Amino acid sequence: MTASDWAGFFADAAALDREAYLFLEYYLECSGDPELAAAHFCSEQSTAQWRRVGFDEDLRPQFGARVVDLEIIESGRRAFSYGVGSAQHAPVTACRIRIAHPHGNFGPRLPNLLSAICGEGTFFSPSAPIVKLLDIEFPDSYLAHFQGPQFGVAGLRDLLQVYDRPIFFGVIKPNIGLPPEAFSELGHESWLGGLDIAKDDEMLADTDWCPLDRRAELLGAARQRAEAATGVPKMYLANITDEVDQLIALHDRAIERGANALLINAMPTGLSAVRMLRRHARVPLMAHFPFIAPFARLAHFGVHTRVFTKLQRLAGFDVIIMPGFGPRMHMDDDEVRACAAACLEPMGPIKPSLPVPGGSDWAGTLRPLYEKLGTVDFGFVPGRGVFGHPLGPRAGAASIRQAWDAIVAGETLEACAARHPELSTALAAFGQPSHAGGQG
Amino acid sequence: MTASDWAGFFADAAALDREAYLFLEYYLECSGDPELAAAHFCSEQSTAQWRRVGFDEDLRPQFGARVVDLEIIESGRRAFSYGVGSAQHAPVTACRIRIAHPHGNFGPRLPNLLSAICGEGTFFSPSAPIVKLLDIEFPDSYLAHFQGPQFGVAGLRDLLQVYDRPIFFGVIKPNIGLPPEAFSELGHESWLGGLDIAKDDEMLADTDWCPLDRRAELLGAARQRAEAATGVPKMYLANITDEVDQLIALHDRAIERGANALLINAMPTGLSAVRMLRRHARVPLMAHFPFIAPFARLAHFGVHTRVFTKLQRLAGFDVIIMPGFGPRMHMDDDEVRACAAACLEPMGPIKPSLPVPGGSDWAGTLRPLYEKLGTVDFGFVPGRGVFGHPLGPRAGAASIRQAWDAIVAGETLEACAARHPELSTALAAFGQPSHAGGQG
Repeated sequence: MTASDWAGFFADAAALDREAYLFLEYYLECSGDPELAAAHFCSEQSTAQWRRVGFDEDLRPQFGARVVDLEIIESGRRAFSYGVGSAQHAPVTACRIRIAHPHGNFGPRLPNLLSAICGEGTFFSPSAPIVKLLDIEFPDSYLAHFQGPQFGVAGLRDLLQVYDRPIFFGVIKPNIGLPPEAFSELGHESWLGGLDIAKDDEMLADTDWCPLDRRAELLGAARQRAEAATGVPKMYLANITDEVDQLIALHDRAIERGANALLINAMPTGLSAVRMLRRHARVPLMAHFPFIAPFARLAHFGVHTRVFTKLQRLAGFDVIIMPGFGPRMHMDDDEVRACAAACLEPMGPIKPSLPVPGGSDWAGTLRPLYEKLGTVDFGFVPGRGVFGHPLGPRAGAASIRQAWDAIVAGETLEACAARHPELSTALAAFGQPSHAGGQG
Repeated sequence: MTASDWAGFFADAAALDREAYLFLEYYLECSGDPELAAAHFCSEQSTAQWRRVGFDEDLRPQFGARVVDLEIIESGRRAFSYGVGSAQHAPVTACRIRIAHPHGNFGPRLPNLLSAICGEGTFFSPSAPIVKLLDIEFPDSYLAHFQGPQFGVAGLRDLLQVYDRPIFFGVIKPNIGLPPEAFSELGHESWLGGLDIAKDDEMLADTDWCPLDRRAELLGAARQRAEAATGVPKMYLANITDEVDQLIALHDRAIERGANALLINAMPTGLSAVRMLRRHARVPLMAHFPFIAPFARLAHFGVHTRVFTKLQRLAGFDVIIMPGFGPRMHMDDDEVRACAAACLEPMGPIKPSLPVPGGSDWAGTLRPLYEKLGTVDFGFVPGRGVFGHPLGPRAGAASIRQAWDAIVAGETLEACAARHPELSTALAAFGQPSHAGGQG
């Protein structure tokens, strides 16, 4: 590109029709001139070759992505952060760029959106081998094409009749290997102890040793017994993660038999398949997070979890389970908060999703989680903290509810535990530092 | 876990029923005892909590993943490679582990496979924040559930009647912004010049400014004119990347109108959706590679491109376009060769896929690519090298064929160019070092 060529990839944001563009924020490390690298980056994302040979035309005004802001974070570095690529004797510059990308290039389609914002144009732009997509903003004109969550936080609260506290989930464990009969009994116990939602592990599929039909039937019945016994609504969250062409049928089979919420592993199944399921769904859809860390964990490369959280909300998940606080999950506190905010903040006509930051939770991690989030609009999802409780899952679930009661009453966990054997047993079992290496 | 607990996650590979397991190879950096970390890693991938409270049971013999080999690469490091996680005063060990994972835990389902091999269990195992999935091997009992490519390399060659040379692709450019009429004219010219397959860019969708129906109609007609003019079969590779629930309809509409091969961006659309489309497909399916680099580029984190190549083949792609050689693509030569091998090597009943290593190609990059791969079973996919050729796409395509003729004749590109203005013009236009930063 010549200097006059690359000027075509810069614009004043104020002069653009905001409804015609997605706004994208990237971290970039480049060798050589950062303005040239930013121009190339926009070119590669959009009109890589903007005229035919022998024609006097310029496709950039309508189709070109544009740099609307370029902030140099540090220049004169001698190498890229991760030992990828060669600086070819040119110094490396770390920068943050904001790009206006015309969504009319591809339309309101999730696979094409992903191809545009984290595809070849993004990760193979000349002299910029280190890239992280940090954030995305959608204009209302784009959001209008998406349904988003069907129930959202308010709808989920209505279904559960729970308004003033977090939603209490539990991952039924052992997660792999139990027959439906034993598995459903664990779920039943956890509801009686106070869980709102007992869930399948994200690894549990429709297998011959624990078929979904039978599981949904037994857990559906157990749920109804628990509802009758406790007088409050309960949910069985069945994992229907499976091949895309099975999702609709599995949805129908699971809810006919008694599941009343469905789990789908977002990334392995694909966001577009979730959007398809959302059109058909009659119950809340909940996301789990396998295959996100491989492209999101490193500070300066890949795609920020906030972006993927927004996309899961857009695809129609009512609940988004995500890596939470604590060293085990390798997310810094700001990142977890950013993901929770991405679930709850205004997003045009799209309803909020309930954030569920998880990882090695038990009664003792509830207060720090609540305090770090600063809202009751979250879900809490222990596994072993309920189902590995030494007194069993009913006591495990009770210990979670007791921990919440202590928060509401403004008393310490220890003070509350003095009156409750479930909580005191949890403290003794999980309150040790060794739990940091335990089974979540 | 106690020491006796974690012994349950080790096994002698020779003692296992090989048909019951996937074999997985991981790079791992852990703090503390690497054997304990490896045991945790297997536990988290499978039976995280292997018994109910109060029951005398052990789910590991049937359901546990097992370490079958553990190789210490380096011990005593003071930090992790990428500044993630804390070594907590324990030294870091880099190792390579081989795991036998019982596929009966989830079955022959791609979303569940991905959840198992690169999900929470893999990337959130205690004290091992740095992980890369390096390779996967499937037993025939697992492969038997998959169709794999419908045509494969041999079938594609039969369709094109090309047996003794690489397949010549070209990405029609400008890729974004042209109306179907102008776009199809470029494809027509490139076929006349000698391309086998003219393709849509991976960013081109079914938009109002270039609807797929009209594009397929015009390019289908242009293809038939080019076949009549040249006497050889040609292919129009239409990009039908779109929402999952549109794929079957777009397949039908595109091929009814004249497309005879279809492009799908594998990762953004989802492998499971590709598997669904494969069941319905009547033409070769070809993969493009957006959203793979974010989890595959770094040496010691994420998922190796070889793994994802195998999974694309398993899902049913006849052709796999992948990042190729050269500094632009940030793949070392061995990695490109490993991906090409993953397409072509024996894989039980699954047919080979044609590897197409791409990136800034033109006539001059054909010989190095051929020599590095050491086979004619590959595709060559220039963009600007054909469509940015100063004499137009017909000459651009001719320059590619001339470059191949020079290889066959054992002459230099320069000697061949002396007789061919198309090739000499390509040499003058693209043979400069500045092209390394140009538009692929």
